[in-house]
Amino acid sequence: MTAHRSLLGLTMGDACGIGPEIIVRLFGREPVLDGVVLGDVGVLRTAAARLGSLTPVAAIERPADRAQVPPGCVPVLPVPRLPADLAALPLGRVDARAGAAAARCIEEGVALVQAGELAGIVTAPIHKEALAAAGIAYPGHTEMLQALAAAGGAAPPVRMMLANDQLRTVLVTIHQSLRSAIDAVTFDAVLQTLRIAHRAAAAWGQPQPRIAVAGLNPHAGEGGLFGDEEIRIIAPAVAAARAEGIDARGPFAPDTVFMRARHAPDHPGEFDLVIAMTHDHGLIPVKYLGVEQGVNVTLGLPFVRTSPDHGTAFDIAGRGVADPSSLAAAVRVARQLVAGALSGASAPP
Amino acid sequence: MTAHRSLLGLTMGDACGIGPEIIVRLFGREPVLDGVVLGDVGVLRTAAARLGSLTPVAAIERPADRAQVPPGCVPVLPVPRLPADLAALPLGRVDARAGAAAARCIEEGVALVQAGELAGIVTAPIHKEALAAAGIAYPGHTEMLQALAAAGGAAPPVRMMLANDQLRTVLVTIHQSLRSAIDAVTFDAVLQTLRIAHRAAAAWGQPQPRIAVAGLNPHAGEGGLFGDEEIRIIAPAVAAARAEGIDARGPFAPDTVFMRARHAPDHPGEFDLVIAMTHDHGLIPVKYLGVEQGVNVTLGLPFVRTSPDHGTAFDIAGRGVADPSSLAAAVRVARQLVAGALSGASAPP
Repeated sequence: MTAHRSLLGLTMGDACGIGPEIIVRLFGREPVLDGVVLGDVGVLRTAAARLGSLTPVAAIERPADRAQVPPGCVPVLPVPRLPADLAALPLGRVDARAGAAAARCIEEGVALVQAGELAGIVTAPIHKEALAAAGIAYPGHTEMLQALAAAGGAAPPVRMMLANDQLRTVLVTIHQSLRSAIDAVTFDAVLQTLRIAHRAAAAWGQPQPRIAVAGLNPHAGEGGLFGDEEIRIIAPAVAAARAEGIDARGPFAPDTVFMRARHAPDHPGEFDLVIAMTHDHGLIPVKYLGVEQGVNVTLGLPFVRTSPDHGTAFDIAGRGVADPSSLAAAVRVARQLVAGALSGASAPP
Repeated sequence: MTAHRSLLGLTMGDACGIGPEIIVRLFGREPVLDGVVLGDVGVLRTAAARLGSLTPVAAIERPADRAQVPPGCVPVLPVPRLPADLAALPLGRVDARAGAAAARCIEEGVALVQAGELAGIVTAPIHKEALAAAGIAYPGHTEMLQALAAAGGAAPPVRMMLANDQLRTVLVTIHQSLRSAIDAVTFDAVLQTLRIAHRAAAAWGQPQPRIAVAGLNPHAGEGGLFGDEEIRIIAPAVAAARAEGIDARGPFAPDTVFMRARHAPDHPGEFDLVIAMTHDHGLIPVKYLGVEQGVNVTLGLPFVRTSPDHGTAFDIAGRGVADPSSLAAAVRVARQLVAGALSGASAPP
């Protein structure tokens, strides 16, 4: 089944959001995209019809059937046990059926990856409240993927990486208040982030990434004058990582480390990855030049998973204006990560 | 004395740092720069000699004499009562005499602005420890300028603005630990920042700036789920500012508001200014595309003051590699601010 080893599964996301339409537009742009859609044929056909798109939607039975679908069609693998009449749901609203369907698509994607029929998954946006309305216990993709990857065992620790063509940042803390995030910046959390980032880079074919660690405080604490987390917590975690053979450096002043790592044609970055202590220290620079290029990568899972860096955008769903650029970038990054994994680089333990 | 009304004073900064050499290089690049140097003739001549520069250094008696100095010379107004033999100090080290001289140059600059002989000042970098060694009670420029502006009365509240060609951010908190900065984000501090920013924009000729206020927490608190400072503090301060006629909006998610405000040829910014709650939320995006373009502007003073966004760089002082770009940008911004003030826009009260 070597042909499948580079095939990606695109989950359709919340049927009431922009997921289905950006998937149709993406296949319209990239007629031979090496992926299959995990979703509902009716939802995708309706999305195409709303767009006035000429892109046909073809149902397939197995991922490997992708090869038989003509270029320019959207190959959809119908996910079993989806709620009925999804295509008739009104757009732009929280609906339990859309939440349940989104979750089923993700489950199916993970099952196919685990069965070796897909190389990785790219997830279109889901809606937290729709999941909750469907009685799904997970607040988002990451937690659900962790649980599915655990398969009943201990959930693997994961970290969110945001990446674009210039910068990759991995976050120690994410969705919590800034005050509680400071408390969550512990020696263990920083060291574990370094280990996860290092292993993930090896899995995508970069065995010794240069990892910069941003400080938490202005000027990385200015020698303890503006906070001591760098001295008490971050520097010791960097030292411990270095003792394990990880090329970790820092802590560096947050206001310049992202600029130093920025990789552009006229500006070779000093680092391959930057570890950020807080959500916004890491995301402000990744998003600064435009969200449409940002890709969210979950590090620490035993498979490749990327997603666009935006939500369901209920406010514009069905209007034909949603931009598939971030989804396209998510596919591009997933392809790179899968290629690294295929190239013989060691996978994360 | 209308001719003086656009003339800038460039303080030479710490004589042991890169200030004198970047000033010489700047005048080499901009032979008719509308400014005079407040400093020591010997220090500037030595800096020019070390650079192998052909730029002559000319002593003048009053700012108005600038007009008599031939293009391509560095016009230096010798500051009275400087320590002797400054030009002989070793570079790259903390020295009390350099600290004392730097402070004297700033005092002289403010005195000349207050006397109407200069339109504003651009300050080359000083060194905190050198100031302390000289027994100067101020940790940096800002505090010293506040005290000089107060002239014995109450010091005017000021805020740091960092600006480049794409983005202007004004900071509610600056040099303190992130934990204490959260405590310093109060209703009064946010409202006062909005008032200072609004008045400053009027002084530079933009009477109704569109001011975005960034949140403190991820997703600006996500409705209270990730912290409640937006609900308790920031939104009420924005509302109070709006009630005063200030075009304040937000709080917005920190990770996208700077991107939205970014002003580039292909990307008109949605806002003229962004208020950031913390040092690094505000400085990460300003510095992301390169520190050499960043300019520090002190808002709230009764006169224009800008500075380059870097320090004394003792490690490279005298090697001839220091880049005058940020100083040049500081002069350019000061010139714009002075022009706004001259154009008849109302000055801050």
